[in-house]
Amino acid sequence: MKTIKTFNKDKYDKREWIRLINCLSGFKSVNLVGTVNKAGEENLSVISSFFHLGANPPLMGFVVRPHSNKSPRHTLINLQELGFYTLNAVTKKNHIKGHQASARYPKNVSEFEAIGLKSIYKNDFKAPYVEESTLQVGFKLVEVMDIKHNGTHIVIGEIVELHLEESMVQDDGFIDLEAGEVLALSGLDSYHETKSIHRLSYAKPDQKIEEI
Amino acid sequence: MKTIKTFNKDKYDKREWIRLINCLSGFKSVNLVGTVNKAGEENLSVISSFFHLGANPPLMGFVVRPHSNKSPRHTLINLQELGFYTLNAVTKKNHIKGHQASARYPKNVSEFEAIGLKSIYKNDFKAPYVEESTLQVGFKLVEVMDIKHNGTHIVIGEIVELHLEESMVQDDGFIDLEAGEVLALSGLDSYHETKSIHRLSYAKPDQKIEEI
Repeated sequence: MKTIKTFNKDKYDKREWIRLINCLSGFKSVNLVGTVNKAGEENLSVISSFFHLGANPPLMGFVVRPHSNKSPRHTLINLQELGFYTLNAVTKKNHIKGHQASARYPKNVSEFEAIGLKSIYKNDFKAPYVEESTLQVGFKLVEVMDIKHNGTHIVIGEIVELHLEESMVQDDGFIDLEAGEVLALSGLDSYHETKSIHRLSYAKPDQKIEEI
Repeated sequence: MKTIKTFNKDKYDKREWIRLINCLSGFKSVNLVGTVNKAGEENLSVISSFFHLGANPPLMGFVVRPHSNKSPRHTLINLQELGFYTLNAVTKKNHIKGHQASARYPKNVSEFEAIGLKSIYKNDFKAPYVEESTLQVGFKLVEVMDIKHNGTHIVIGEIVELHLEESMVQDDGFIDLEAGEVLALSGLDSYHETKSIHRLSYAKPDQKIEEI
């Protein structure tokens, strides 16, 4: 094992430090968040910080970088305006286009058009889905929490809609992400396919874990 | 695509619903969080909700389920008592033992002993690391935020120490999680190896994405 003795940002190039810190949590989901404002201007952003917050009610959170007039966060503005947004899994087929959505486009440019992914509206839901995504989740905004330590924002939403490839659905509620070619991300820019090892049984004290 | 028309928890068996909701964010990191209290009682818990909150200062968050006298969260109690905790990546070699740490052991039982992973203390850091983990990160507690919608808690911490296998360190700051056999999780119980597809260049408008 190596102890990073120089673990201090002053010892690193700025971009090197950001790459390092972004790798330390381990593998991440990588999703595209779709929103639209009242004027009908769409936005799509890459988010790798979705986390499960609870099942009853079904809540997830994700992080938005600091919003300011100089660096407006269109996703945050839109989801606060209409109160809805979508999560769309990045897949093997669409990940290069998806990565392009992280470029900083002006407000009047729809990332959907700029990167070549198609927006689709379903059931009068007030946010666009990414048609090419195999897992599409619709959220109603619950709360935006401001993090005072660094100016970021945690968006908390409740899941209200679900659309996915039929091959991903399993009998016991489990969703087979690999059947939908969903990718994992590490750091800022490294895309990974996955290979299932196994599922493991619910853990109890004094009971052996088994494959299920 | 299949639209889940019955997307309502009343239509699902309780465990089936929990499995489903836990799958929707995509692939997750799976880490063991090590803590100790003033009396020297150690705790280790499985956490799949770590998320990057920012690099300057280096902050991450994770979710702890509702704490109460009936369901005490030993990780939360310990990290608030001494103010420190560790993240230890779950790897191919240690993941079955790691999964066992999610069993609910009494307060006076150390999960390290119960599951057979070794705790190790480094540099007078006030929390134990998992010796068998290839990526070990030491945190200082910054804040515990209570989520009013479901009683969960978001723990925010600053990274203060880093220990990892030397083979994982790359020149530009990137950490090769695969070199350390770090696994990804989906849902509550599905463990996955990963295979890198590629890293992609920083995205800018009107510039083609390239492999790096």
